[in-house]
Amino acid sequence: MTPCNPKSTFLVSAFSGPPQTNLSRSYSSTTAISMASDEVQKAKEAAASNAGGDGAPPTIFDKILSGDIPANKIHDDDLCIAFRDVNPQAPVHFLVIPKNRDGLTQLSKAREDQKELLGHMMYVAQMLGKEECPGGFRVVVNDGSDGAQSVYHLHIVSAWCAEVF
Amino acid sequence: MTPCNPKSTFLVSAFSGPPQTNLSRSYSSTTAISMASDEVQKAKEAAASNAGGDGAPPTIFDKILSGDIPANKIHDDDLCIAFRDVNPQAPVHFLVIPKNRDGLTQLSKAREDQKELLGHMMYVAQMLGKEECPGGFRVVVNDGSDGAQSVYHLHIVSAWCAEVF
Repeated sequence: MTPCNPKSTFLVSAFSGPPQTNLSRSYSSTTAISMASDEVQKAKEAAASNAGGDGAPPTIFDKILSGDIPANKIHDDDLCIAFRDVNPQAPVHFLVIPKNRDGLTQLSKAREDQKELLGHMMYVAQMLGKEECPGGFRVVVNDGSDGAQSVYHLHIVSAWCAEVF
Repeated sequence: MTPCNPKSTFLVSAFSGPPQTNLSRSYSSTTAISMASDEVQKAKEAAASNAGGDGAPPTIFDKILSGDIPANKIHDDDLCIAFRDVNPQAPVHFLVIPKNRDGLTQLSKAREDQKELLGHMMYVAQMLGKEECPGGFRVVVNDGSDGAQSVYHLHIVSAWCAEVF
């Protein structure tokens, strides 16, 4: 196999400044202002973590899923939701995430029995993508630190349509 | 819905120069040099087109699938193959394509009954991605002209790993 070369720089012009999920930063100032609300918040976070059942820390997406943080949802079904990024990096920029993380902190954690979920999420991503960007769009999944993943809850990023590619 | 604005330019720095599938250009000089071979070539192209059964023109990927053009395959199963891009835009750069296009000229043509295929291809993309880029990678599908799609046979592009994002 071709070895990875993380020090390579020839991609800078091609890949500089990838889309980021900026929800974490945007919501980082959300803090409890009293002991009671802090406890409630902790419980909610724990619940969200347990809901995933995968032992990994909760993320901002758990709060969106639980309704603690509002999101501009554009899709909601049994398996996933889609919502607009609060800090869009494109004219259209939304995320598709599984309702039950179930170990899918990142794409590379996918199990074979999660293929159906992956396929469904890709279907939803393209369904919404072509609704909003009939001229074309891009679907991206960032995985891991070298892949610039910002939130450890699988998210399919779609769809910025533009002639600026 | 937020309207698309293809004239927007604020994405130039973020998204300029996306990865392209350069097979078309690389192989564009492949021409028949005699009447006989031309006929053979046409027949092969027709067969490839019919194999897809979707009426759309064959692409360079049909020739890879038929073996007319060699490819550096890194995966081959009943549903898809994966092979390295002949003009890699990253230290690791490979494509996952369905063996039977079946109308999947682009992601936005996906039918509900193709979710299983989409899920399988995403699973393969991440399986290979983490093998070659344990530190992370990116999976991309470009759709349509605004999405900079270069070959009209669904292809999941994966995985360039680098700190250059």
